[in-house]
Amino acid sequence: HLDGDTLLRQIQALGDIGRDENLGGRTRIAYTDAEKAGRDQLVRWMQQLDLSVQVDQIGNIFGTLPAANGSTDVRPLMLGSHIDTVQNAGALDGCYGVLAGLAVQRAYRQAGQLPARPITVAAFSNEEGVRFQPDMMGSLVHAGGLALQEALDSRDSDGIRLGDELQRIGYAGTLAAGSIVPHEYLELHIEQGPVLEAEGIAIGAVANLQGISWQQLTIRGKANHAGTTPLQLRHDAGWAAASIVTFVREWARQSGSTLATVGSLRFEPNLINVIPRQAVLTVDLRDPDESRLQQAEQALREFIAELEVNEQVSIHCEQLARFEPVHFTEPLVAEIERAARQRGLSCRRMTSGAGHDAQMIARITPAAMIFVPSRGGISHNPREHTDDAQLLQGAQLLLDVVARRLLA
Amino acid sequence: HLDGDTLLRQIQALGDIGRDENLGGRTRIAYTDAEKAGRDQLVRWMQQLDLSVQVDQIGNIFGTLPAANGSTDVRPLMLGSHIDTVQNAGALDGCYGVLAGLAVQRAYRQAGQLPARPITVAAFSNEEGVRFQPDMMGSLVHAGGLALQEALDSRDSDGIRLGDELQRIGYAGTLAAGSIVPHEYLELHIEQGPVLEAEGIAIGAVANLQGISWQQLTIRGKANHAGTTPLQLRHDAGWAAASIVTFVREWARQSGSTLATVGSLRFEPNLINVIPRQAVLTVDLRDPDESRLQQAEQALREFIAELEVNEQVSIHCEQLARFEPVHFTEPLVAEIERAARQRGLSCRRMTSGAGHDAQMIARITPAAMIFVPSRGGISHNPREHTDDAQLLQGAQLLLDVVARRLLA
Ligand SMILES: NC(=O)NCCC(=O)O
Ligand SMILES: NC(=O)NCCC(=O)O
Repeated sequence: HLDGDTLLRQIQALGDIGRDENLGGRTRIAYTDAEKAGRDQLVRWMQQLDLSVQVDQIGNIFGTLPAANGSTDVRPLMLGSHIDTVQNAGALDGCYGVLAGLAVQRAYRQAGQLPARPITVAAFSNEEGVRFQPDMMGSLVHAGGLALQEALDSRDSDGIRLGDELQRIGYAGTLAAGSIVPHEYLELHIEQGPVLEAEGIAIGAVANLQGISWQQLTIRGKANHAGTTPLQLRHDAGWAAASIVTFVREWARQSGSTLATVGSLRFEPNLINVIPRQAVLTVDLRDPDESRLQQAEQALREFIAELEVNEQVSIHCEQLARFEPVHFTEPLVAEIERAARQRGLSCRRMTSGAGHDAQMIARITPAAMIFVPSRGGISHNPREHTDDAQLLQGAQLLLDVVARRLLA
Repeated sequence: HLDGDTLLRQIQALGDIGRDENLGGRTRIAYTDAEKAGRDQLVRWMQQLDLSVQVDQIGNIFGTLPAANGSTDVRPLMLGSHIDTVQNAGALDGCYGVLAGLAVQRAYRQAGQLPARPITVAAFSNEEGVRFQPDMMGSLVHAGGLALQEALDSRDSDGIRLGDELQRIGYAGTLAAGSIVPHEYLELHIEQGPVLEAEGIAIGAVANLQGISWQQLTIRGKANHAGTTPLQLRHDAGWAAASIVTFVREWARQSGSTLATVGSLRFEPNLINVIPRQAVLTVDLRDPDESRLQQAEQALREFIAELEVNEQVSIHCEQLARFEPVHFTEPLVAEIERAARQRGLSCRRMTSGAGHDAQMIARITPAAMIFVPSRGGISHNPREHTDDAQLLQGAQLLLDVVARRLLA
């Protein structure tokens, strides 16, 4: 039996850490003081459930409920997600999945009965990737897709080293990265998109996940006077950046399947009457189909090459993250569908638009995800919302699927 | 006789104040410590010439060489410009005109002879307008175009009040703003554009000056997830900003006479995977013709109104500066041409692309400007350059024109 009250209370309590009353959301960007406070809270809750708590070298936190037979060489069933946030975030993205994992463990504790294999809840480090790229970093390191040292040596835009921040907040753990190889992995998450709500469906059985390409483009032009410099003599890094923004959006519009976003853009010197000398922007391209994602990347490359010639600017591209589309494990997806049917919950197969830790863990073990609806499809925004009843349905379904897999 | 060595040495010395060795230029933005250091240097040089130095309530600095007859009720001939800079600027913009004014006064001192009317050199406060808008603020207040109190109450983007900064740097003077009404006003300046160099001409007799419209646009959209939000559900303040950048550039291209620049643009929250909730940008529109400038403003308004509907964002426009085109005083322009002919210097009438203090002072007194070439048309950039020989030609011509006007 799922203890829904505790789950909802914990979501609320974790969501209160890092609150900004002015902006309305909470900010717990990876390895900040606020995020440390979130970690401390999570660890306390894990200890209250008498889990064995381990922190690995990249700062992933694992809380394990032992198996009934007490044997330690059995691979755990892992339930995971993350508790870091973007700036001014909602309370659900990531946290919901971690805390629902605790709710599953609590159900076993409250029933006074241990599972057939250990159940490990993982809170992966730096999923959002807003400060240190790539995103899903903790799960990527866990899956062996990024060397630990390289991850620790990442620097944020102020030049601060990830490893130093991890030390500073006290979460540079000793468990070797990647030690815990799960038997299977399940991640419950809010959809963060509009599909389930629009179709009035309770549960998404996530069958696949888009490929993601993140690039940072640095455009170097020439500063000059806004009032005296004819257009044909300009090397306007700001205008070049803006043309990239409109180009990728138009590409996405025409493609119908590729998504493209420029979320970050900075001008230098950023003065009203000075043609920008430099612009730095990020491009986020996504597509469920690898070849279409490559087409978008190629089109962007060609557009950039033309811009360099036409505006006589230089453009340097740095790949910040690049993940191919992922297909989750068919028997797990089908299990989610069956469990939903059993509970009388409407369910559809779907593609995840967002990146998730599951996509990394899928490299090393069978994995799948469960989605619940997001009101208005809004996420990365304080107005991110899912009704309590839907949150509890999702958590109950996770418990059901866990129970089924432990029998399997 | 013009003392060219001192002039060039002073340009160099003033240009060393606020140097940034990394960026290569100097930064003396109005009312900063670096700008105070520049002011202090200028005042020392004025004192060395035994000028009567006055500072007015908006921080304009005036150094007056008395007239031969010692009468104090005669209106001075004023030579002016500014010594504040943009970020990472060249050494000439503004400073050249002020220091050439001192060179004219020095020529009288060294000849041991006083002029027929007082000659006042003015260094107007906050000409660049990068921190507090509008630009040309000191001369605008002097000319009665902006109330003193309103100017003092201006705030920069950190909310700091201009009047407080002026107090802080010790240049909140006691002379009532606008007290010194000049008989005539002359401003010597580098062109900051490519025309004179391209045509191989030594001197520009500036006949008119473009109208300038500065707006700040604040676009409010909705933050959302870059990976999950379909295009048709986006309210992307960043993309809306980029479309304005490309729209005004295209308008300028097709117009052939209007110039348009977006020098400053900021996204919020400015994160790679979050659709921008807000974008703040500036638009600088210029045209020598008022009706064409109004057409451009109107076209921008219409484009913004369409964007608000199509992307469902709200866009707030604030006018930061608005100056109609100015026509300088014909007899003064003709005097410059005659003086150039006398010295055998090639000369053409031209339009100023940049805003200048002369454009404000022209509201209260006959005014004109002299331009010298700018290498590559580059300004607001550390590579701003004019050959010494050309600088000295310009200063000599200013002295010639002053001598002619004092006879007139
Ligand atoms: N789920 C989620 O918001 N992940 C962040 C990475 C992404 O941008 O998709
Ligand atoms: N001369 C000059 O650079 N003035 C600054 C105001 C402008 O942007 O034109």
